[in-house]
Amino acid sequence: MNKNEKLLIIPLGGLGEIGKNMTVFRYGDDIIIVDSGLAFPEEDMLGIDLVIPDMSYLFDNKDKIKAVVLTHGHEDHIGSLFYLLRQVDVPVYGSRLTLGLVEGRLKEYAVSDRNLIPVGPGDAITLGQFEVGFIRVNHSIADALAVYLKTPLGTVVHTGDFKLDQTPVDGQIIDIHKFAELGNQGVLVLLSDSTNAEREGYTKSERTVSEALDEHFSSAKGRIILTTFASNVSRLQQAINSACEYGRKVALLGRSMVTVITKATELGYMTIPEGVLIGVDEIGRYPENQILILTTGSQGEPMAALSRLASRSHRSLELAPGDTVLIAANPIPGNERSVGRTIDALLRLGIHVVYERSSGIHVSGHGSQEELKLILNLVRPKFLIPVHGEHRMLKQHGKLATEIGIPKENVFIGENGHVFEFTAETGRFAGKVTAGKIFVDGLGVGDVGNIVIRDRRQLSKDGVLIVVVTLDKARGCILDGPDIVSRGFVYVRDSDALIDESRKIVKSVLERFENQPITEWAPLKAGIREALGKYLFAKTGRRPMILPIIMDL
Amino acid sequence: MNKNEKLLIIPLGGLGEIGKNMTVFRYGDDIIIVDSGLAFPEEDMLGIDLVIPDMSYLFDNKDKIKAVVLTHGHEDHIGSLFYLLRQVDVPVYGSRLTLGLVEGRLKEYAVSDRNLIPVGPGDAITLGQFEVGFIRVNHSIADALAVYLKTPLGTVVHTGDFKLDQTPVDGQIIDIHKFAELGNQGVLVLLSDSTNAEREGYTKSERTVSEALDEHFSSAKGRIILTTFASNVSRLQQAINSACEYGRKVALLGRSMVTVITKATELGYMTIPEGVLIGVDEIGRYPENQILILTTGSQGEPMAALSRLASRSHRSLELAPGDTVLIAANPIPGNERSVGRTIDALLRLGIHVVYERSSGIHVSGHGSQEELKLILNLVRPKFLIPVHGEHRMLKQHGKLATEIGIPKENVFIGENGHVFEFTAETGRFAGKVTAGKIFVDGLGVGDVGNIVIRDRRQLSKDGVLIVVVTLDKARGCILDGPDIVSRGFVYVRDSDALIDESRKIVKSVLERFENQPITEWAPLKAGIREALGKYLFAKTGRRPMILPIIMDL
Repeated sequence: MNKNEKLLIIPLGGLGEIGKNMTVFRYGDDIIIVDSGLAFPEEDMLGIDLVIPDMSYLFDNKDKIKAVVLTHGHEDHIGSLFYLLRQVDVPVYGSRLTLGLVEGRLKEYAVSDRNLIPVGPGDAITLGQFEVGFIRVNHSIADALAVYLKTPLGTVVHTGDFKLDQTPVDGQIIDIHKFAELGNQGVLVLLSDSTNAEREGYTKSERTVSEALDEHFSSAKGRIILTTFASNVSRLQQAINSACEYGRKVALLGRSMVTVITKATELGYMTIPEGVLIGVDEIGRYPENQILILTTGSQGEPMAALSRLASRSHRSLELAPGDTVLIAANPIPGNERSVGRTIDALLRLGIHVVYERSSGIHVSGHGSQEELKLILNLVRPKFLIPVHGEHRMLKQHGKLATEIGIPKENVFIGENGHVFEFTAETGRFAGKVTAGKIFVDGLGVGDVGNIVIRDRRQLSKDGVLIVVVTLDKARGCILDGPDIVSRGFVYVRDSDALIDESRKIVKSVLERFENQPITEWAPLKAGIREALGKYLFAKTGRRPMILPIIMDL
Repeated sequence: MNKNEKLLIIPLGGLGEIGKNMTVFRYGDDIIIVDSGLAFPEEDMLGIDLVIPDMSYLFDNKDKIKAVVLTHGHEDHIGSLFYLLRQVDVPVYGSRLTLGLVEGRLKEYAVSDRNLIPVGPGDAITLGQFEVGFIRVNHSIADALAVYLKTPLGTVVHTGDFKLDQTPVDGQIIDIHKFAELGNQGVLVLLSDSTNAEREGYTKSERTVSEALDEHFSSAKGRIILTTFASNVSRLQQAINSACEYGRKVALLGRSMVTVITKATELGYMTIPEGVLIGVDEIGRYPENQILILTTGSQGEPMAALSRLASRSHRSLELAPGDTVLIAANPIPGNERSVGRTIDALLRLGIHVVYERSSGIHVSGHGSQEELKLILNLVRPKFLIPVHGEHRMLKQHGKLATEIGIPKENVFIGENGHVFEFTAETGRFAGKVTAGKIFVDGLGVGDVGNIVIRDRRQLSKDGVLIVVVTLDKARGCILDGPDIVSRGFVYVRDSDALIDESRKIVKSVLERFENQPITEWAPLKAGIREALGKYLFAKTGRRPMILPIIMDL
C-alpha cells in the first residue's frame, strides 16, 4: 500500500436526479464501477429516447477499469451498460436475475454478453486492490444486492436501492447481520438510497399487498386486469398466487411483461404452476371470473397495453363493464396526468378501477426514514454520501444522519461529477470531473445536443415557415418564387391572405438587393427573416422558425 | 308557463377535466351561462397558450342569452369571457372582486367592460324566466359565490367552487342557512364541485395557515420569500398580517402578484397598513429580518419570479443563504417535476425551503367528502350533476350522493356537451350539442387544430429536413441543387457524410424522372420522401419531417 494513495468516489449519476445511477470507485490505478443506468427523458428533452451518464471520465481511464458491479436489474441501474461495454471490455458482476435482464438489453443493442459473471449474496471477489462483496437487500425487484468494497484505506458500503422488508414474499430478508458485522469492523464511507428520505416511518412489507389483493380477488365478479412494473417479480408472483387460489388462469399482455416473467420463471425467481398461464387468444375460452390478465402500462404510457385497452385500441382484447382493473403502482412524478387519463378512460368504459394509494395494492420499494436511520446505525460509517435522489432528498437524508450522530461535516451532499477523496481518516471534496447527460435519440448516442433540442423546442411551439426563391446571382433578380411552405404554424388552407402578404414582403426585401451582383447571402436572408418575423408576429402572435433558402443560377 | 317547456342543463366545460368551466341553463328561449373559464394546455398541446370551451352552441343561440353569471375570479371560471363577449353582447354578473379581475383580463384583449354588473351574496335578479340568486361560499379566492336559478319547473343550485371554512380569515362563512332554506323549499337539481371528492374528511380552515406561518415568521433569521397563487387573497392577507406582527416590510414580485393585490386592496378585500408595502428596489435598505417578499411561481413556472430567483436570473433580486422560501401551495397535477426542480435549485443555493404538505402553510380551497355530503344533505336535491372534476372525481362524488340516499339513477355523470333535460319530476340524458376544446395560440383562437398540432409533434420529435431543387420542367433535368437544410434533426456540422449521401439519394430519385416533361410534382415528391425517409431512419433511427420543394424554370 502506497502511503499517499487515496480512495476516490465519483458519482457520474444518481445525485440530484432520479435515474441513470452510476458510481465510480478508484483506488490507485484500479477502478470499480457500481451500476450503469439510464433515465427517461424529461418533458423538455424533445424527441429524446433515453438519457445516459456522460462517461468521458471512464473512457479516459479505460485501462484502469477492473469491473462493473450491478446492484439490481432496474433500468436506472443497468440501462446504459450497452454504451459502456461498446467501448470498454470488462467483466460485469451481478445476481442471476439482474444478468438475465441485462442479457436481453445487450442483445437489443448487439453488444456481446460474454463478460457477464453471476454472483450472489455472501460472495466476495478480489478485483485489483478492491475486495468486493455482495449483501442481500429487499427492493421492488428480486435478487437485489448491496455492495461493499474493502480497500487498504477502509471499507465502503453502497446500499443500492433497498428497503427493510421483515416479511418478504420470497422469504429472503435483507442481510442485516452483514451490515451489522461490517459496522462492527468499521466502515469508512456509506453510500445510501435517498429516494424516500422525505417519508416518515417504515415502508410497508410487500406481503401486505397479498392481503389487499386477496380482498379484490374474492369480490371481483368478472375478469381481473392487474398492472404493475414488469420488473416487480414479487408483486407479480403474489398476483399469480391469488389467481391460483381463486381459480383464475393468467394471461400476459405487453412485451416487457412477457420478457421479464419468462426470464424470472426460467431462473427460478417465479413459480407458475403448470396450466395456469394461457395465451391472450385463449382468454375467451374461460368464464370471466376465471381470468387474470397481467399487463404493462401502470404509468399511463400511451403505447403500453393498459392505455390501449382504455382507448379501445388494443389489437386482441377488449375490456367491458364487470371487469376490474387493479393499478398496483404509484405514478412516478411527472406521470400523474397520464395515469389519471388512463383511469378516467377506463371508468368511462364502466370498468371498476382500484387505484388509490389507500387501496393497499402498492407499496414502495425504497426504505423510509426509520429504515435509513437503521442502516446508518448498523453500519456506523465515518462518512455518508447520500445517493439516488433529488437534491432535497439527499439533504433530508443528510439531516437524518446528523440526527443519529454523524457530524454534519462528514456528510457529503454532492453533484454528479464531484470527486470525493478519502484517506483512512479524512474525507474532502476534491474537484470535479466531466459529468452530465448524454442524449440517446434513435441510433444516435450523444449526437443530439443543446442546439438541436433548442431548434426542436422552437419548432414544437410555432412550427416552421420556409421561403424559397431562385435568384439570378449576377443581376440579383428573381427567377422563380418566392415560394412559401409552412408546417405546424397555421392551418394552410385558411391562410391564403397571410401567405400572399408574406410573399409580397419577401419580394420587397429582395428588391432592396436588386440590380447588383450578390456576393453573400447572409444579409439577404437576415433581411427576410426580420421583415417576415415582424409581420407574422403582428398578425398571429406566433414566432415560427423562418428558413430562407436561396437557389441561384 | 308552457306545460311542455323543459329545463336544459348543458355543461360546455368542467366535466371530465379540470379547467374551462362553463355551464348553460336553458328554459324555453332564455339562456343563462354560469362561468366562462379557460384551461392551461396539457403537455401534448404543443405551442398552445390557452384552451377554451367550444361555444358553438351559444353562438347558434346568441339571441336567447340573457346573461353570464360568474361564481368567482379564478381563470378557470372567467378566462374565456373575452371570447364570448367578442361575439355576444350580454350583461355579466359577478361579485366586485370577480369583476375587478375580469376587467383587467378584458382590457388585455381589448374587449369592452361596459356590461359588468356587480352583485353580492343575498342578491337576486330576474333574467328572462329565471330568478338568479347568489350565495356566499368559501374558496381560495375572496368573494366567491354559489348561484341558484329558480325556474317555473323548480330550483337549480350550482355551488361553484367551494369549501366550508368555519373560521375563515375574512370572517365571512359560507351561507349554510341559505342552502338549508333552498333545501327546505325543494331543489330540483344540484351541480356541485367535485375536485376533492376523493379526499376523506374535511378540508382544513384557511386560518390554520396563520399559525403555521407565524411559526416560520418567528424563527426565520433572514428574508422570507412566500409564494402562493396570486388570487389567494386570504393567504396573502395572512402573510401580510404575519409580516406586520413580526416587523417586516412587504415587497411584491411578479406581474400577477402586483395586479391582484392592487385590485384587491383597491376594492377593500385586503388591508395593508400604510408604510408596509415597499418597492423591490427598496429591499436593500432594510435589515434582512425585516423583509417579506410575496412572489409568483408556486407552480415552478419557468418564467415566473421564483424560478428566476432559483436560477439566479432575476433582474432585480438575488437570494442568499439565510433566506427562507415558503411554498404555500401544492403542485397542480402535472407540475410536480417543475416544482421539484425549483425547490432543488433553491436548496442548492443554501436557502431554507419549506414545502412539504405537512408544513401546514397550504390548505385546499375545495371541500372534501364530508363537506360535499353536508351540502347534499342541506340542499336535498332530487337530481345531482357532479361538476368540476376529472371523470373519476365525478364518479366518486356520485357515490357519495348515493350513500346519503340519492337514488343512483338520479345522479348524472356526464361529458361536456351532454344535454340534461328536466321536468318538475323527471330528468334524463337528452342527446348532445357541439362541445370541445378550442386552442388559443398567440392571437389566433381556434385556427390551430389537430393537423397543426400533429405537425408540431413530429417536428418536436425529430425535426425537419428540407430538400430544394430547381428543375427544368420541360426537360426534367436538374438546374440547381438539391440543397438540403435541416433543423432539430442532427447536429449539422457533424453530419456532412449523412447530408452528402442524402443529396445523392435525391439525385437518383430525380434521375428516374429525367428526360421527360414533368406534368405533376406529387409522384416526384413522394419518391424523394420515401427514399430519403428510409435511408435516414436506417442511419439515425429518426423520422424527421421531410419537405421536398421543387422550383422550376
